[in-house]
Amino acid sequence: MQIGLIGLGKMGYNLALNLRDHQHEVVAFDISAETMEAISKEGVATAPSIGELTQQLQGRKVVWVMVPAGAPTDAVLKELAPYLAMGDIVIDGGNSNYKDTVMRATKLKLSGIHLLDCGTSGGLSGARHGACTMVGGDAEAFDHCEAIFRDVSVEKGYLYTGKSGSGHFVKMVHNGVEYGMMQAIAEGFEVLHKSDFDLNYKEVARVWNHGSVVRSWLMELVENAFGKDPDLSKIRGIMHSSGEGKWTVEAALEMEVPTPVIALSLLMRYRSQENDTFSGKVVAALRNEFGGHKVEQAE
Amino acid sequence: MQIGLIGLGKMGYNLALNLRDHQHEVVAFDISAETMEAISKEGVATAPSIGELTQQLQGRKVVWVMVPAGAPTDAVLKELAPYLAMGDIVIDGGNSNYKDTVMRATKLKLSGIHLLDCGTSGGLSGARHGACTMVGGDAEAFDHCEAIFRDVSVEKGYLYTGKSGSGHFVKMVHNGVEYGMMQAIAEGFEVLHKSDFDLNYKEVARVWNHGSVVRSWLMELVENAFGKDPDLSKIRGIMHSSGEGKWTVEAALEMEVPTPVIALSLLMRYRSQENDTFSGKVVAALRNEFGGHKVEQAE
Amino acid sequence: MQIGLIGLGKMGYNLALNLRDHQHEVVAFDISAETMEAISKEGVATAPSIGELTQQLQGRKVVWVMVPAGAPTDAVLKELAPYLAMGDIVIDGGNSNYKDTVMRATKLKLSGIHLLDCGTSGGLSGARHGACTMVGGDAEAFDHCEAIFRDVSVEKGYLYTGKSGSGHFVKMVHNGVEYGMMQAIAEGFEVLHKSDFDLNYKEVARVWNHGSVVRSWLMELVENAFGKDPDLSKIRGIMHSSGEGKWTVEAALEMEVPTPVIALSLLMRYRSQENDTFSGKVVAALRNEFGGHKVEQAE
Amino acid sequence: MQIGLIGLGKMGYNLALNLRDHQHEVVAFDISAETMEAISKEGVATAPSIGELTQQLQGRKVVWVMVPAGAPTDAVLKELAPYLAMGDIVIDGGNSNYKDTVMRATKLKLSGIHLLDCGTSGGLSGARHGACTMVGGDAEAFDHCEAIFRDVSVEKGYLYTGKSGSGHFVKMVHNGVEYGMMQAIAEGFEVLHKSDFDLNYKEVARVWNHGSVVRSWLMELVENAFGKDPDLSKIRGIMHSSGEGKWTVEAALEMEVPTPVIALSLLMRYRSQENDTFSGKVVAALRNEFGGHKVEQAE
Repeated sequence: MQIGLIGLGKMGYNLALNLRDHQHEVVAFDISAETMEAISKEGVATAPSIGELTQQLQGRKVVWVMVPAGAPTDAVLKELAPYLAMGDIVIDGGNSNYKDTVMRATKLKLSGIHLLDCGTSGGLSGARHGACTMVGGDAEAFDHCEAIFRDVSVEKGYLYTGKSGSGHFVKMVHNGVEYGMMQAIAEGFEVLHKSDFDLNYKEVARVWNHGSVVRSWLMELVENAFGKDPDLSKIRGIMHSSGEGKWTVEAALEMEVPTPVIALSLLMRYRSQENDTFSGKVVAALRNEFGGHKVEQAE
Repeated sequence: MQIGLIGLGKMGYNLALNLRDHQHEVVAFDISAETMEAISKEGVATAPSIGELTQQLQGRKVVWVMVPAGAPTDAVLKELAPYLAMGDIVIDGGNSNYKDTVMRATKLKLSGIHLLDCGTSGGLSGARHGACTMVGGDAEAFDHCEAIFRDVSVEKGYLYTGKSGSGHFVKMVHNGVEYGMMQAIAEGFEVLHKSDFDLNYKEVARVWNHGSVVRSWLMELVENAFGKDPDLSKIRGIMHSSGEGKWTVEAALEMEVPTPVIALSLLMRYRSQENDTFSGKVVAALRNEFGGHKVEQAE
Repeated sequence: MQIGLIGLGKMGYNLALNLRDHQHEVVAFDISAETMEAISKEGVATAPSIGELTQQLQGRKVVWVMVPAGAPTDAVLKELAPYLAMGDIVIDGGNSNYKDTVMRATKLKLSGIHLLDCGTSGGLSGARHGACTMVGGDAEAFDHCEAIFRDVSVEKGYLYTGKSGSGHFVKMVHNGVEYGMMQAIAEGFEVLHKSDFDLNYKEVARVWNHGSVVRSWLMELVENAFGKDPDLSKIRGIMHSSGEGKWTVEAALEMEVPTPVIALSLLMRYRSQENDTFSGKVVAALRNEFGGHKVEQAE
Repeated sequence: MQIGLIGLGKMGYNLALNLRDHQHEVVAFDISAETMEAISKEGVATAPSIGELTQQLQGRKVVWVMVPAGAPTDAVLKELAPYLAMGDIVIDGGNSNYKDTVMRATKLKLSGIHLLDCGTSGGLSGARHGACTMVGGDAEAFDHCEAIFRDVSVEKGYLYTGKSGSGHFVKMVHNGVEYGMMQAIAEGFEVLHKSDFDLNYKEVARVWNHGSVVRSWLMELVENAFGKDPDLSKIRGIMHSSGEGKWTVEAALEMEVPTPVIALSLLMRYRSQENDTFSGKVVAALRNEFGGHKVEQAE
């Protein structure tokens, strides 16, 4: 199947190779000439602009957009839409906020263009060798593209989730769950680490991956990580985040769902980005005020 | 290898069959005559008392105790110890608190008896077809019994964790992690459930199990559960707990490890066991006091 | 000073009496004719419409709007603005979201109208006998109205907080703190309640209000509440919320501030509104899947 | 009334002066000769040892023990008990764990000695000028000493809470509530601090102390603290803790009471004592493993 692909970042690049391996005819575009040259050497066709990319697509056009959520996605859709006609299909494979997706789909629909929202999990290796995809949008458009989703995903690894926004929504919640699972695992290892026992964390992760209730891909990655750096002494415990965890908590607040574990996983990430906290200063000052407890002086 | 096995509950019964399948010569005892008869029909030898069980074991005796943590374990050890001699080995395969284990091991050591603490994960199917075992205690005693642990575990699924208590400690922390992972998954499905999207939870769990970052045995069990009852309408959301999650939080408090996710997973279980809360009454009363906000009358 | 007052709900009505007691000349309007008649009997002038209200105000007009946040506030401002001229001042004394306030102030500024955002705390008794007010907006407009804020507030109980939105923002955070304090107090009483000790909660609240570190107005209200209903057996522990707690958490997420206590206070309110939880069902189902633990059947 | 007082730390010293001011005849002992000399100059009698202290007391002896909880309290009680006779009364005014108190009371009772457990709040100024006291133990012993508690407390600031342990228990829960209230306040100020608004924190605390729902002694102390150091730049946000918060959470776990706010207040204190976290390293390593997200290198 012929597919336009806009965006060759870490995820998009791997996706291009994945699509190529499944005999799809990809025409790719990226703002980096260097990346375009690299993918070209891999046997993937490229186009020098979004406009020219669309001209290389025949019949009912399908364009997969794989760029960062928010403004970049808006910018690409704005540039792309005029080149598309009624019935054409845009797949947003990025981590867009599902509310943005609903608005974009409604707008594109006015021109008869379908937007499929495809939440993609599995990381870089997934994009390359078989991802997990959750797809929302018009059922007819999904049916037209189903082969694409089947081919880029691992076996049984794609799902049509329903109306517009549902794909990104399910992916967002997936990431919220991921935050909670990661924090749970991480807390467990900190308890092991601060105990008196002398444990080999890689071996613990290994045994937990064989037959235990917590066996999981994340635990396998923990095993890998400890295999490279036995007590992670080379890295700092600063936890960044990219948005979906926050959106999950925001959605939970909106629907009044108690999600303490997902919320705390997010808040501990924010905490990890602080060296010192204003809240801590307030508590320390208070303890000094009423009990004469010593405060630690700032340097 | 010849092994005495005391306790044929859900876990012990399956373990007996698992040991038998691996050509170990099991002599089992349980307080239930019915269970003894059942295991006997499966080809496992039984003894009518703990004393007679030990008499059927030759040479250096190895006895696996698989009874509930706390008083039952203490009672069995008290009855068993007089029948054992220097060098004999007791394996505590239950979910004992690791601090109890350290005390018991110290006490048995006075008589030259070794206590191996074996944390066992994997549930009933694990006990039957291959568990995950984490074993603490004297290295020499572990070496003597290693074949047992290798045989009852899945491949790569056993680990010698070090000194006495470490096996139960690692298992305890495993369960703490498990609590957090389960709550994270559960919160995610509640967010899905309360959204406007019309989702098939079994299918969501299925796709998350194929290629996504959160793929895990727990997610496979979620898929099974939704397969049987698509929106879990037949069961109530009351979450019981058996102790290890609580012990993990207590250990974390003792070592001053911040474990918000594991702690909240536990507290939400306690919350699920309350119909109404005294704390909620206090807040509702307060809102009424200062803002005239209506309270809901108790029936 | 002459003041138009729109909205005679629980807060507005008490505010009208408070202003009257301080010799301000209030012209009030409310959509309820009954309420208008009641306030009229209290010696407060009324006007039959917003338009006529503004006509009764001389010179530089000051109109205090005291209606629910959101759509009602927008509707009143839309109706009111055409009757105002450059330099006139609108005070929004409701619990508006500070972001809405910033947008409204910007829009009114185009017509030269000043919007002061006045966060008001202290509940009904505060509105009547002396509130706590936090006021944002143009400094000159605040200066013009300062006597009003001084008079309706307790001594030292008003503050000019800076640019537009800051008054509502400081009030919002105040409510976030209030949520946390209330939940902390409430949890404490639940611990007392579930203990073996036989405690008189009113007396505990009383002693905590005399000399202890936690003495506070909220604790005095707790004492009142237990005075009326010694173990709060007449009310259910369902905790509603009106928005500011949620907005505080949303603001915290936006600024990446770790606010676990405020967040959990909110989430426990949501939890209190559920009879059964989907998340609890998922955990119960999982425990059954792997450990054969019994689930409780839904009725 | 004649009272022996053992322990002249920050709290005990102020208590001695407080008792003296109320015409009680104090005989004090402390291990520090310097402190003994100082209190002596204040007109308080001293004794060179616990034994001699008891000899200076006539009739039914009352000894107030004001030393750190745990081993120091045990040591003092062990030394003191042999000098006491049936009917004599020991007051433990420290922050003992209520479970220890129950055991100690039971043991002293064997010799007919009464132990009153007196939880004391109000900080140093409370000990000096009027504290809040919560007293458990035999009612008859309390009656005998009631004048003492009335005199050292602010008006209405003492309570007989019931059987042994209840005084320390109520004080422990008080501190749990205090942790939660402090963290709530502290989080609020961090939200203010990270906002775009330019706020004077002392003034915000001042206005919140006059007429608002959150007015409280703690907020007054916040006002004091910001008065001395407007943005607390001189102190670090490291929050120590002395035990009661932890015990409150442990008691809550034991009684299965959901106390998320108190628990999180404690866990955030532990977090504040970490420079880097092992859990953060695990999450950062995981994000790198699956998504190629950069980790920050440890120095």
